[in-house]
Amino acid sequence: MARDSLDDLNAKLLAFARERDWEQFHSPKNLSMALAGECGELLEHFQWLNEQQSAELDADRKQQVALEMADILIYLIRLAERLDVDLVDSAYRKMAMNRERYPTERVRGDARRADEYD
Amino acid sequence: MARDSLDDLNAKLLAFARERDWEQFHSPKNLSMALAGECGELLEHFQWLNEQQSAELDADRKQQVALEMADILIYLIRLAERLDVDLVDSAYRKMAMNRERYPTERVRGDARRADEYD
Amino acid sequence: MARDSLDDLNAKLLAFARERDWEQFHSPKNLSMALAGECGELLEHFQWLNEQQSAELDADRKQQVALEMADILIYLIRLAERLDVDLVDSAYRKMAMNRERYPTERVRGDARRADEYD
Amino acid sequence: MARDSLDDLNAKLLAFARERDWEQFHSPKNLSMALAGECGELLEHFQWLNEQQSAELDADRKQQVALEMADILIYLIRLAERLDVDLVDSAYRKMAMNRERYPTERVRGDARRADEYD
Repeated sequence: MARDSLDDLNAKLLAFARERDWEQFHSPKNLSMALAGECGELLEHFQWLNEQQSAELDADRKQQVALEMADILIYLIRLAERLDVDLVDSAYRKMAMNRERYPTERVRGDARRADEYD
Repeated sequence: MARDSLDDLNAKLLAFARERDWEQFHSPKNLSMALAGECGELLEHFQWLNEQQSAELDADRKQQVALEMADILIYLIRLAERLDVDLVDSAYRKMAMNRERYPTERVRGDARRADEYD
Repeated sequence: MARDSLDDLNAKLLAFARERDWEQFHSPKNLSMALAGECGELLEHFQWLNEQQSAELDADRKQQVALEMADILIYLIRLAERLDVDLVDSAYRKMAMNRERYPTERVRGDARRADEYD
Repeated sequence: MARDSLDDLNAKLLAFARERDWEQFHSPKNLSMALAGECGELLEHFQWLNEQQSAELDADRKQQVALEMADILIYLIRLAERLDVDLVDSAYRKMAMNRERYPTERVRGDARRADEYD
Protein backbone atom coordinates (compact mmCIF):
# COMPACT_ATOMS: atom_id res chain seq x y z
CA MET A 1 0.00 0.00 0.00
CA ALA A 2 1.34 3.38 -0.93
CA ARG A 3 2.55 5.68 1.82
CA ASP A 4 3.15 9.29 1.09
CA SER A 5 6.24 11.18 2.23
CA LEU A 6 4.22 14.13 3.57
CA ASP A 7 2.00 11.82 5.62
CA ASP A 8 5.04 10.07 7.04
CA LEU A 9 6.73 13.34 7.93
CA ASN A 10 3.56 14.64 9.53
CA ALA A 11 3.23 11.57 11.76
CA LYS A 12 6.86 11.76 12.87
CA LEU A 13 6.76 15.52 13.51
CA LEU A 14 3.60 15.18 15.56
CA ALA A 15 5.21 12.44 17.67
CA PHE A 16 8.35 14.59 18.10
CA ALA A 17 6.27 17.52 19.39
CA ARG A 18 4.16 15.33 21.68
CA GLU A 19 7.16 13.61 23.25
CA ARG A 20 8.47 17.05 24.23
CA ASP A 21 5.08 18.42 25.29
CA TRP A 22 5.54 21.14 22.67
CA GLU A 23 2.04 21.07 21.19
CA GLN A 24 1.15 23.79 23.69
CA PHE A 25 3.55 26.15 21.84
CA HIS A 26 2.39 25.14 18.38
CA SER A 27 -0.52 27.48 17.91
CA PRO A 28 -1.03 28.43 14.26
CA LYS A 29 0.03 31.98 15.16
CA ASN A 30 3.32 30.79 16.64
CA LEU A 31 3.98 28.34 13.82
CA SER A 32 3.42 31.07 11.21
CA MET A 33 6.13 33.09 12.98
CA ALA A 34 8.54 30.15 13.09
CA LEU A 35 7.91 29.52 9.40
CA ALA A 36 8.62 33.15 8.53
CA GLY A 37 11.71 33.15 10.72
CA GLU A 38 13.12 30.22 8.77
CA CYS A 39 12.37 31.99 5.49
CA GLY A 40 14.38 34.92 6.84
CA GLU A 41 17.34 32.61 7.41
CA LEU A 42 16.98 31.29 3.88
CA LEU A 43 17.05 34.85 2.50
CA GLU A 44 20.28 35.56 4.34
CA HIS A 45 22.05 32.89 2.32
CA PHE A 46 21.09 34.57 -0.93
CA GLN A 47 20.95 38.29 -0.16
CA TRP A 48 24.45 39.27 -1.35
CA LEU A 49 24.64 36.73 -4.18
CA ASN A 50 23.56 37.60 -7.66
CA GLU A 51 21.03 35.33 -9.37
CA GLN A 52 23.70 33.34 -11.17
CA GLN A 53 25.67 32.76 -7.99
CA SER A 54 22.50 31.69 -6.20
CA ALA A 55 22.20 28.82 -8.69
CA GLU A 56 25.83 27.70 -8.21
CA LEU A 57 26.19 27.13 -4.48
CA ASP A 58 29.19 25.19 -3.27
CA ALA A 59 28.50 21.91 -1.44
CA ASP A 60 28.73 23.36 2.05
CA ARG A 61 26.40 26.26 1.37
CA LYS A 62 23.98 24.02 -0.48
CA GLN A 63 23.87 21.74 2.56
CA GLN A 64 23.04 24.69 4.81
CA VAL A 65 20.36 25.89 2.42
CA ALA A 66 18.84 22.40 2.26
CA LEU A 67 18.52 22.39 6.05
CA GLU A 68 16.80 25.80 6.06
CA MET A 69 14.39 24.45 3.47
CA ALA A 70 13.83 21.42 5.69
CA ASP A 71 12.88 23.75 8.55
CA ILE A 72 10.38 25.52 6.32
CA LEU A 73 8.80 22.22 5.27
CA ILE A 74 8.72 21.02 8.87
CA TYR A 75 6.87 24.08 10.16
CA LEU A 76 4.56 24.08 7.16
CA ILE A 77 3.58 20.48 7.87
CA ARG A 78 3.10 21.24 11.57
CA LEU A 79 0.87 24.19 10.70
CA ALA A 80 -1.17 22.09 8.29
CA GLU A 81 -1.67 19.49 11.00
CA ARG A 82 -2.86 22.10 13.52
CA LEU A 83 -5.27 23.70 11.08
CA ASP A 84 -6.35 20.42 9.48
CA VAL A 85 -5.32 21.70 6.04
CA ASP A 86 -4.53 19.25 3.25
CA LEU A 87 -1.36 20.74 1.77
CA VAL A 88 -1.33 18.73 -1.43
CA ASP A 89 -4.98 19.32 -2.16
CA SER A 90 -4.50 23.05 -1.49
CA ALA A 91 -1.51 23.16 -3.83
CA TYR A 92 -3.56 21.60 -6.63
CA ARG A 93 -6.39 24.06 -6.03
CA LYS A 94 -3.92 26.95 -6.13
CA MET A 95 -2.36 25.65 -9.33
CA ALA A 96 -5.79 25.51 -10.95
CA MET A 97 -6.37 29.13 -9.93
CA ASN A 98 -2.96 30.11 -11.30
CA ARG A 99 -3.76 28.40 -14.58
CA GLU A 100 -6.77 30.69 -14.99
CA ARG A 101 -4.97 33.80 -13.79
CA TYR A 102 -1.93 33.31 -15.98
CA PRO A 103 -3.00 31.86 -19.33
CA THR A 104 0.05 30.62 -21.20
CA GLU A 105 -0.43 32.74 -24.29
CA ARG A 106 -0.80 35.91 -22.25
CA VAL A 107 2.10 35.70 -19.84
CA ARG A 108 4.79 33.83 -21.72
CA GLY A 109 8.18 35.16 -20.64
CA ASP A 110 6.61 37.83 -18.46
CA ALA A 111 6.63 37.54 -14.68
CA ARG A 112 4.62 40.60 -13.77
CA ARG A 113 2.14 40.16 -11.00
CA ALA A 114 -1.39 39.25 -11.91
CA ASP A 115 -2.78 42.56 -10.73
CA GLU A 116 -0.69 44.38 -13.26
CA TYR A 117 -2.44 42.66 -16.13
CA ASP A 118 -5.80 44.14 -15.25
CA MET B 1 2.37 1.64 -8.06
CA ALA B 2 3.02 4.27 -5.45
CA ARG B 3 3.57 7.83 -6.58
CA ASP B 4 4.60 10.46 -4.15
CA SER B 5 2.64 13.69 -3.85
CA LEU B 6 5.76 15.88 -3.74
CA ASP B 7 7.15 14.29 -6.91
CA ASP B 8 3.85 14.76 -8.68
CA LEU B 9 3.62 18.39 -7.62
CA ASN B 10 7.19 19.02 -8.67
CA ALA B 11 6.59 17.64 -12.16
CA LYS B 12 3.43 19.69 -12.64
CA LEU B 13 5.00 22.91 -11.30
CA LEU B 14 8.00 22.51 -13.57
CA ALA B 15 5.72 22.03 -16.56
CA PHE B 16 3.68 25.09 -15.53
CA ALA B 17 6.83 27.23 -15.39
CA ARG B 18 8.19 25.91 -18.69
CA GLU B 19 4.93 26.47 -20.58
CA ARG B 20 5.12 30.11 -19.54
CA ASP B 21 8.88 30.47 -20.12
CA TRP B 22 9.18 31.44 -16.46
CA GLU B 23 12.22 29.33 -15.59
CA GLN B 24 14.34 32.38 -16.45
CA PHE B 25 12.81 34.18 -13.42
CA HIS B 26 13.14 31.21 -11.10
CA SER B 27 16.66 31.71 -9.82
CA PRO B 28 17.10 30.41 -6.26
CA LYS B 29 17.54 34.02 -5.13
CA ASN B 30 14.23 35.08 -6.65
CA LEU B 31 12.39 32.00 -5.40
CA SER B 32 13.65 32.60 -1.85
CA MET B 33 12.11 36.07 -2.06
CA ALA B 34 8.80 34.75 -3.38
CA LEU B 35 8.74 32.17 -0.60
CA ALA B 36 9.36 34.81 2.05
CA GLY B 37 6.75 37.09 0.49
CA GLU B 38 4.15 34.35 0.85
CA CYS B 39 5.16 33.80 4.47
CA GLY B 40 4.55 37.50 5.00
CA GLU B 41 1.02 37.11 3.66
CA LEU B 42 0.48 34.17 6.00
CA LEU B 43 1.60 36.27 8.97
CA GLU B 44 -0.91 38.96 8.09
CA HIS B 45 -3.77 36.53 8.67
CA PHE B 46 -2.60 35.84 12.21
CA GLN B 47 -0.99 39.08 13.40
CA TRP B 48 -3.96 40.55 15.27
CA LEU B 49 -5.41 37.23 16.45
CA ASN B 50 -4.43 35.75 19.77
CA GLU B 51 -3.15 32.18 19.82
CA GLN B 52 -6.54 30.71 20.66
CA GLN B 53 -8.24 32.60 17.83
CA SER B 54 -5.53 31.48 15.42
CA ALA B 55 -6.60 27.89 16.07
CA GLU B 56 -10.30 28.61 15.49
CA LEU B 57 -10.43 30.18 12.04
CA ASP B 58 -13.80 30.41 10.34
CA ALA B 59 -14.20 28.51 7.06
CA ASP B 60 -13.52 31.49 4.82
CA ARG B 61 -10.35 32.54 6.62
CA LYS B 62 -9.16 28.95 6.80
CA GLN B 63 -9.57 28.67 3.06
CA GLN B 64 -7.47 31.80 2.52
CA VAL B 65 -4.80 30.51 4.88
CA ALA B 66 -4.74 27.13 3.10
CA LEU B 67 -4.05 28.92 -0.19
CA GLU B 68 -1.18 30.93 1.34
CA MET B 69 0.25 27.67 2.63
CA ALA B 70 -0.13 26.22 -0.87
CA ASP B 71 1.91 29.13 -2.26
CA ILE B 72 4.65 28.44 0.28
CA LEU B 73 4.75 24.75 -0.64
CA ILE B 74 4.76 25.60 -4.35
CA TYR B 75 7.75 27.94 -4.10
CA LEU B 76 9.57 25.56 -1.78
CA ILE B 77 9.18 22.75 -4.30
CA ARG B 78 10.31 25.02 -7.14
CA LEU B 79 13.39 26.05 -5.14
CA ALA B 80 14.21 22.41 -4.34
CA GLU B 81 13.99 21.58 -8.04
CA ARG B 82 16.32 24.41 -9.01
CA LEU B 83 18.90 23.53 -6.37
CA ASP B 84 18.48 19.78 -6.76
CA VAL B 85 17.65 19.44 -3.06
CA ASP B 86 15.71 16.41 -1.81
CA LEU B 87 13.18 18.02 0.53
CA VAL B 88 12.06 14.85 2.27
CA ASP B 89 15.58 13.57 2.82
CA SER B 90 16.60 17.00 4.16
CA ALA B 91 13.65 17.04 6.54
CA TYR B 92 14.64 13.63 7.95
CA ARG B 93 18.25 14.79 8.38
CA LYS B 94 17.05 17.92 10.17
CA MET B 95 14.77 15.87 12.41
CA ALA B 96 17.72 13.67 13.38
CA MET B 97 19.71 16.80 14.27
CA ASN B 98 16.79 18.15 16.30
CA ARG B 99 16.53 14.88 18.16
CA GLU B 100 20.11 15.33 19.35
CA ARG B 101 19.75 19.02 20.08
CA TYR B 102 16.53 18.68 22.02
CA PRO B 103 16.63 15.47 24.06
CA THR B 104 13.16 14.70 25.37
CA GLU B 105 14.06 14.63 29.05
CA ARG B 106 15.80 17.98 28.84
CA VAL B 107 13.31 20.12 26.97
CA ARG B 108 9.92 18.71 27.90
CA GLY B 109 7.42 21.55 28.04
CA ASP B 110 10.10 24.14 27.34
CA ALA B 111 10.37 25.83 23.97
CA ARG B 112 13.45 27.93 24.52
CA ARG B 113 15.87 28.05 21.65
CA ALA B 114 18.72 25.57 21.58
CA ASP B 115 21.33 28.29 22.04
CA GLU B 116 19.82 29.20 25.38
CA TYR B 117 20.52 25.76 26.77
CA ASP B 118 24.26 26.10 26.32
CA MET C 1 20.84 74.40 13.70
CA ALA C 2 18.65 71.36 13.98
CA ARG C 3 20.00 68.06 12.73
CA ASP C 4 17.73 65.11 12.36
CA SER C 5 18.67 61.67 13.65
CA LEU C 6 17.62 59.90 10.44
CA ASP C 7 19.72 62.27 8.32
CA ASP C 8 22.71 61.70 10.57
CA LEU C 9 22.30 57.94 10.45
CA ASN C 10 21.92 58.01 6.69
CA ALA C 11 25.15 59.96 6.23
CA LYS C 12 27.10 57.64 8.50
CA LEU C 13 25.69 54.47 6.94
CA LEU C 14 26.50 55.70 3.46
CA ALA C 15 30.08 56.45 4.52
CA PHE C 16 30.33 52.99 6.15
CA ALA C 17 29.23 51.29 2.93
CA ARG C 18 31.51 53.40 0.73
CA GLU C 19 34.58 52.80 2.87
CA ARG C 20 34.05 49.06 2.35
CA ASP C 21 33.11 49.34 -1.33
CA TRP C 22 29.79 47.73 -0.44
CA GLU C 23 27.53 50.00 -2.48
CA GLN C 24 27.86 47.48 -5.32
CA PHE C 25 25.96 44.94 -3.17
CA HIS C 26 23.32 47.41 -2.01
CA SER C 27 20.83 47.14 -4.83
CA PRO C 28 17.26 47.75 -3.66
CA LYS C 29 16.53 44.09 -4.37
CA ASN C 30 19.36 42.91 -2.12
CA LEU C 31 18.55 45.43 0.61
CA SER C 32 14.91 44.33 0.66
CA MET C 33 16.16 40.78 1.30
CA ALA C 34 18.52 41.89 4.08
CA LEU C 35 15.67 43.85 5.67
CA ALA C 36 13.36 40.85 5.58
CA GLY C 37 16.12 38.60 6.92
CA GLU C 38 16.47 40.86 9.96
CA CYS C 39 12.71 40.81 10.49
CA GLY C 40 12.95 37.03 10.51
CA GLU C 41 15.52 37.21 13.30
CA LEU C 42 13.23 39.53 15.23
CA LEU C 43 10.35 37.07 14.89
CA GLU C 44 12.49 34.29 16.32
CA HIS C 45 12.80 36.16 19.60
CA PHE C 46 9.03 36.29 19.98
CA GLN C 47 7.73 33.12 18.33
CA TRP C 48 7.40 30.93 21.43
CA LEU C 49 6.48 33.74 23.83
CA ASN C 50 2.90 34.65 24.50
CA GLU C 51 1.86 38.28 24.04
CA GLN C 52 2.27 39.11 27.71
CA GLN C 53 5.77 37.61 27.84
CA SER C 54 6.72 39.52 24.71
CA ALA C 55 6.09 42.74 26.63
CA GLU C 56 8.19 41.67 29.61
CA LEU C 57 11.58 40.80 28.16
CA ASP C 58 14.49 40.47 30.54
CA ALA C 59 17.38 42.91 30.07
CA ASP C 60 19.54 40.56 28.02
CA ARG C 61 16.78 39.57 25.62
CA LYS C 62 15.66 43.19 25.31
CA GLN C 63 19.21 44.14 24.36
CA GLN C 64 19.26 41.49 21.64
CA VAL C 65 15.87 42.62 20.34
CA ALA C 66 17.03 46.25 20.28
CA LEU C 67 19.98 45.26 18.09
CA GLU C 68 17.71 43.38 15.66
CA MET C 69 15.54 46.48 15.47
CA ALA C 70 18.68 48.53 14.81
CA ASP C 71 19.51 46.24 11.87
CA ILE C 72 16.02 46.77 10.46
CA LEU C 73 16.34 50.55 10.76
CA ILE C 74 19.82 50.45 9.21
CA TYR C 75 18.71 48.51 6.12
CA LEU C 76 15.56 50.60 5.80
CA ILE C 77 17.64 53.79 5.76
CA ARG C 78 20.07 52.29 3.23
CA LEU C 79 17.16 51.30 0.98
CA ALA C 80 15.65 54.76 1.25
CA GLU C 81 18.97 56.27 0.24
CA ARG C 82 19.30 54.01 -2.79
CA LEU C 83 15.76 54.68 -3.98
CA ASP C 84 15.79 58.35 -3.01
CA VAL C 85 12.72 57.87 -0.83
CA ASP C 86 11.96 60.29 1.99
CA LEU C 87 11.05 57.95 4.84
CA VAL C 88 9.51 60.55 7.12
CA ASP C 89 7.45 62.14 4.39
CA SER C 90 6.26 58.68 3.27
CA ALA C 91 5.28 57.80 6.83
CA TYR C 92 3.16 60.96 7.10
CA ARG C 93 1.50 60.21 3.78
CA LYS C 94 0.75 56.66 4.92
CA MET C 95 -0.66 57.93 8.21
CA ALA C 96 -2.99 60.26 6.34
CA MET C 97 -4.19 57.32 4.23
CA ASN C 98 -4.70 55.21 7.36
CA ARG C 99 -6.72 58.00 8.94
CA GLU C 100 -9.16 57.80 6.03
CA ARG C 101 -9.19 54.02 5.89
CA TYR C 102 -9.73 53.56 9.60
CA PRO C 103 -12.03 56.30 10.91
CA THR C 104 -11.94 56.34 14.70
CA GLU C 105 -15.64 55.81 15.25
CA ARG C 106 -15.73 52.81 12.94
CA VAL C 107 -12.75 50.77 14.08
CA ARG C 108 -12.45 51.50 17.79
CA GLY C 109 -11.19 48.38 19.55
CA ASP C 110 -11.30 46.37 16.34
CA ALA C 111 -8.13 45.42 14.51
CA ARG C 112 -9.60 43.69 11.50
CA ARG C 113 -7.93 44.44 8.24
CA ALA C 114 -9.30 47.22 6.11
CA ASP C 115 -10.42 44.85 3.39
CA GLU C 116 -12.74 43.12 5.81
CA TYR C 117 -14.74 46.30 6.37
CA ASP C 118 -15.77 46.52 2.75
CA MET D 1 14.34 74.31 19.15
CA ALA D 2 15.12 71.11 17.33
CA ARG D 3 12.48 68.43 17.12
CA ASP D 4 13.39 65.04 15.83
CA SER D 5 11.39 63.35 13.10
CA LEU D 6 11.34 59.97 14.87
CA ASP D 7 10.05 61.53 18.10
CA ASP D 8 7.34 63.35 16.21
CA LEU D 9 6.28 60.22 14.37
CA ASN D 10 6.26 58.22 17.59
CA ALA D 11 3.96 60.72 19.31
CA LYS D 12 1.54 60.80 16.38
CA LEU D 13 1.48 57.01 15.98
CA LEU D 14 0.82 56.52 19.66
CA ALA D 15 -2.08 58.99 19.52
CA PHE D 16 -3.43 57.23 16.42
CA ALA D 17 -3.41 53.85 18.21
CA ARG D 18 -4.94 55.25 21.39
CA GLU D 19 -7.78 57.02 19.58
CA ARG D 20 -8.74 53.64 18.08
CA ASP D 21 -8.18 51.66 21.28
CA TRP D 22 -5.64 49.61 19.35
CA GLU D 23 -2.91 49.49 22.00
CA GLN D 24 -4.45 46.22 23.19
CA PHE D 25 -3.43 44.63 19.87
CA HIS D 26 0.04 46.14 19.85
CA SER D 27 1.95 43.57 21.87
CA PRO D 28 5.59 43.29 20.80
CA LYS D 29 4.80 39.82 19.47
CA ASN D 30 2.00 41.09 17.26
CA LEU D 31 3.98 44.13 16.10
CA SER D 32 6.93 41.92 15.10
CA MET D 33 4.51 39.96 12.90
CA ALA D 34 3.06 43.11 11.34
CA LEU D 35 6.59 44.38 10.66
CA ALA D 36 7.58 41.10 8.98
CA GLY D 37 4.34 41.08 6.99
CA GLU D 38 5.18 44.49 5.55
CA CYS D 39 8.69 43.31 4.67
CA GLY D 40 7.05 40.47 2.78
CA GLU D 41 5.05 42.98 0.75
CA LEU D 42 8.24 44.89 0.02
CA LEU D 43 9.92 41.73 -1.24
CA GLU D 44 7.05 41.08 -3.63
CA HIS D 45 7.83 44.31 -5.47
CA PHE D 46 11.39 43.18 -6.14
CA GLN D 47 11.22 39.40 -6.45
CA TRP D 48 11.02 39.13 -10.25
CA LEU D 49 13.18 42.19 -10.99
CA ASN D 50 16.91 41.89 -11.46
CA GLU D 51 19.15 44.09 -9.36
CA GLN D 52 19.49 46.73 -12.05
CA GLN D 53 15.71 46.94 -12.55
CA SER D 54 15.20 47.21 -8.79
CA ALA D 55 17.21 50.45 -8.89
CA GLU D 56 15.20 51.90 -11.77
CA LEU D 57 11.59 51.77 -10.60
CA ASP D 58 9.04 53.79 -12.50
CA ALA D 59 7.24 56.54 -10.57
CA ASP D 60 4.16 54.48 -9.76
CA ARG D 61 6.08 51.48 -8.48
CA LYS D 62 8.43 53.73 -6.52
CA GLN D 63 5.43 55.32 -4.85
CA GLN D 64 4.09 51.91 -3.83
CA VAL D 65 7.49 50.86 -2.52
CA ALA D 66 7.80 54.09 -0.51
CA LEU D 67 4.47 53.31 1.17
CA GLU D 68 5.60 49.78 2.08
CA MET D 69 8.73 51.29 3.57
CA ALA D 70 6.55 53.72 5.50
CA ASP D 71 4.62 50.78 6.96
CA ILE D 72 7.87 49.17 8.06
CA LEU D 73 9.02 52.39 9.74
CA ILE D 74 5.63 52.82 11.39
CA TYR D 75 5.59 49.35 12.95
CA LEU D 76 9.24 49.64 13.94
CA ILE D 77 8.52 52.88 15.80
CA ARG D 78 5.45 51.35 17.46
CA LEU D 79 7.51 48.36 18.59
CA ALA D 80 10.25 50.62 19.95
CA GLU D 81 7.63 52.53 21.92
CA ARG D 82 6.15 49.37 23.43
CA LEU D 83 9.54 47.95 24.40
CA ASP D 84 11.00 51.31 25.42
CA VAL D 85 13.87 50.89 22.97
CA ASP D 86 15.80 53.91 21.71
CA LEU D 87 16.06 53.18 17.98
CA VAL D 88 18.70 55.78 17.18
CA ASP D 89 20.89 54.86 20.10
CA SER D 90 20.57 51.17 19.19
CA ALA D 91 21.53 51.89 15.58
CA TYR D 92 24.69 53.69 16.71
CA ARG D 93 25.59 50.82 19.00
CA LYS D 94 25.07 48.35 16.18
CA MET D 95 27.18 50.45 13.83
CA ALA D 96 30.01 50.45 16.37
CA MET D 97 29.78 46.65 16.56
CA ASN D 98 29.79 46.40 12.77
CA ARG D 99 32.86 48.61 12.60
CA GLU D 100 34.72 46.07 14.72
CA ARG D 101 33.32 43.04 12.93
CA TYR D 102 34.02 44.35 9.46
CA PRO D 103 37.31 46.27 9.48
CA THR D 104 37.65 48.25 6.26
CA GLU D 105 40.92 46.72 5.13
CA ARG D 106 39.60 43.20 5.58
CA VAL D 107 36.22 43.31 3.90
CA ARG D 108 36.61 45.87 1.13
CA GLY D 109 34.49 44.78 -1.82
CA ASP D 110 33.48 41.55 -0.09
CA ALA D 111 30.00 41.10 1.33
CA ARG D 112 30.35 37.68 2.87
CA ARG D 113 28.78 37.26 6.25
CA ALA D 114 30.88 37.83 9.31
CA ASP D 115 30.70 34.21 10.35
CA GLU D 116 32.42 33.18 7.17
CA TYR D 117 35.53 35.16 8.08
CA ASP D 118 36.13 33.11 11.18
